[in-house]
Amino acid sequence: MLTTTAAKEAISLAMPAFDTEPVDCAAAAGRILRQAVVAERDQPPFDRVTMDGIAVRHDALARGIRAFRIAATQHAGDPVSTLTDSNGCIEIMTGAMLPIGSDCIIPGERISVAGGIAEVEQDYRAARGQFIHAQGSDHRQGTQVLAPGAMLTANEIAIVASCGLHTIEVSRQPAIRVVSTGNELVAPGRPIEPHQIRLSNGPAVVAMLQLQGFMNCRHDHLIDDPEALRTSIAMHLREAQVLILSGGVSMGKADFVPQILADLGVRMILHKISQRPGKPMWFGMGPDDQAVFALPGNPVSTLVCCRQYVLPALMDASGRSARPGEWALLTESVTFKADLTFFMPVRLQSNIDGTLRARPVPTNTSGDFTALGGTDGYVELAREQGYFAEDSPVPLHRWDAP
Amino acid sequence: MLTTTAAKEAISLAMPAFDTEPVDCAAAAGRILRQAVVAERDQPPFDRVTMDGIAVRHDALARGIRAFRIAATQHAGDPVSTLTDSNGCIEIMTGAMLPIGSDCIIPGERISVAGGIAEVEQDYRAARGQFIHAQGSDHRQGTQVLAPGAMLTANEIAIVASCGLHTIEVSRQPAIRVVSTGNELVAPGRPIEPHQIRLSNGPAVVAMLQLQGFMNCRHDHLIDDPEALRTSIAMHLREAQVLILSGGVSMGKADFVPQILADLGVRMILHKISQRPGKPMWFGMGPDDQAVFALPGNPVSTLVCCRQYVLPALMDASGRSARPGEWALLTESVTFKADLTFFMPVRLQSNIDGTLRARPVPTNTSGDFTALGGTDGYVELAREQGYFAEDSPVPLHRWDAP
Repeated sequence: MLTTTAAKEAISLAMPAFDTEPVDCAAAAGRILRQAVVAERDQPPFDRVTMDGIAVRHDALARGIRAFRIAATQHAGDPVSTLTDSNGCIEIMTGAMLPIGSDCIIPGERISVAGGIAEVEQDYRAARGQFIHAQGSDHRQGTQVLAPGAMLTANEIAIVASCGLHTIEVSRQPAIRVVSTGNELVAPGRPIEPHQIRLSNGPAVVAMLQLQGFMNCRHDHLIDDPEALRTSIAMHLREAQVLILSGGVSMGKADFVPQILADLGVRMILHKISQRPGKPMWFGMGPDDQAVFALPGNPVSTLVCCRQYVLPALMDASGRSARPGEWALLTESVTFKADLTFFMPVRLQSNIDGTLRARPVPTNTSGDFTALGGTDGYVELAREQGYFAEDSPVPLHRWDAP
Repeated sequence: MLTTTAAKEAISLAMPAFDTEPVDCAAAAGRILRQAVVAERDQPPFDRVTMDGIAVRHDALARGIRAFRIAATQHAGDPVSTLTDSNGCIEIMTGAMLPIGSDCIIPGERISVAGGIAEVEQDYRAARGQFIHAQGSDHRQGTQVLAPGAMLTANEIAIVASCGLHTIEVSRQPAIRVVSTGNELVAPGRPIEPHQIRLSNGPAVVAMLQLQGFMNCRHDHLIDDPEALRTSIAMHLREAQVLILSGGVSMGKADFVPQILADLGVRMILHKISQRPGKPMWFGMGPDDQAVFALPGNPVSTLVCCRQYVLPALMDASGRSARPGEWALLTESVTFKADLTFFMPVRLQSNIDGTLRARPVPTNTSGDFTALGGTDGYVELAREQGYFAEDSPVPLHRWDAP
């Protein structure tokens, strides 16, 4: 049986890289950048005024001049003007280009204006170059400002736009099909018999994928009929690059899925991982490089395996840069004797001493997932260790930060 | 000038609550729940088998019986069967109902089957009730499993589905209009003159809102012409519940926006907050309870003010439960002498000792936002304090966790 680490590596090795596609920057939020972005121009692209006021020559001030005739007004977005009269000034707005011939900005609250003359406070002392953000002082034209692999959040969208890019190369959304199998599953809203179970895993997996930006997901529910399963799974394999099956991978008689996958040319990469929950996890690759994840049908297992294996694999295949790990301290001791890695759901507490603490949320048996509401993630308790003392640091996996 | 805390309170007091609407659960990911969700049935809804194997009477085992005639097979999703022969067994799959008359499950790997007889390993010892998840042991029918205010992530979607709900009451998406003002702004992809600036704030604000689930956002760019501004802003106020203006709130001559807003019946709630960046922040309420945020045009200010004020206000108005604050330790000392709250962008480092550390990312001047790429959020340095030692705990605001 593979360890959790070996399983991650095996999946990572097998996963293909998703293609790229150009998208409009206005629709790129949450996508993964697949090109370098370089500065279009110096930043700032000109000597930029950072204060509303007047632009003057510092020499004039130094010579004791306090009254400056206003020669012109320059707004942000105006072409540059020129200060020709060395004792004059140009009324200037934040964001404007520094007028040629000026080298000092005096703030509006330090002057009074009357009759076209700006009078500077007698005791005001100005420095040459003040309130001027020099051209290229942030970075020079051609500087790389974003590397491939960045997740495009608001900050990156601002940077991309500032570089003048209207479209940008991002990772193409993989076509993902989520398939729930099981006669016992009944969709919400329909009448249910005592022996039946609500269909909840498939919709939850789709939600988890969508919230991470994988929007091309469809869900299908299949009953445990070998021929119907074969036909439908074959269709999904034709249409999808990623197939996620929920249920149908344990060893019961009605679990036809492994054989059907084999018949359809899906090569098994791994089956069973030394972990709880989620031991029966299965992963394989289809004949056209489709990634096939078969998640154990137990709800907690499904959610943990999706977060622990599927999302990181999709992020890797999308070219997203690796993220550093996170750690948290256990708020109470935990004993776990099975020779398995234990993924234990937790709520996080951020303390004023700067520590992050993880409070275990018992899920009763791994079938009880109502306790998962409001959890922030789960901690990973090493297989080699059976007892974890209060305040032990343990690896943390947030649900929303794969 | 208001403090940052007073500004938040003033906005919170003024904001209306958004309406609710029913949505299909399959489309509810990322929405905010506005109803309580109660368990449809006991969980598990029946005595549920947790292992593939055979169901027997424990008494028979105790009497030394090892060979059990297989009377029937019961899969998950089958109606319950009855074990009539006290020395017989029913072949059983994980997730199935416990057959009536049985009280013990023997795992498949502990038996061998031949000629319709299941033979249990001679030295196998079983406990009564083993591998049975008792009806109602997780929770009882009618138990509240989700409270209003929950953000619907994958876990909550699973819970909602398990309660049999097909549609669910969530917060209605507010209509949001983001308006960039300024003659100097040129959209990406268009030719640009040296005195012009790329339009980047509006698209960044839209991206930030969308990534938090506010999808009904449109962006508009207006030039600094009083009549055109008045007409367009009036139109946006008719169409939107939330209007976000970027630029146009400082004191320069071309900043017509405050007067136009006043003319259109928008009542100012606050102007200027004792903070850097973002001091010129403006907030008001329109005649039909539209929230109007005017964010300073400087890119770093725009992003920080959107995250610090707009997103929390939208979350509050959507009824989302309040989130606890976060803390991080500074990786280096910081001196900030201005009598203002300082919002300083940081990258986070999670350490194996369980501490979260915030590394300051200088933004040069507040106009340099390329450094923001890859930052995780910003820390809040109190106005009353000018020096913050290395390892000081400071409040942390993540970009993606308003």
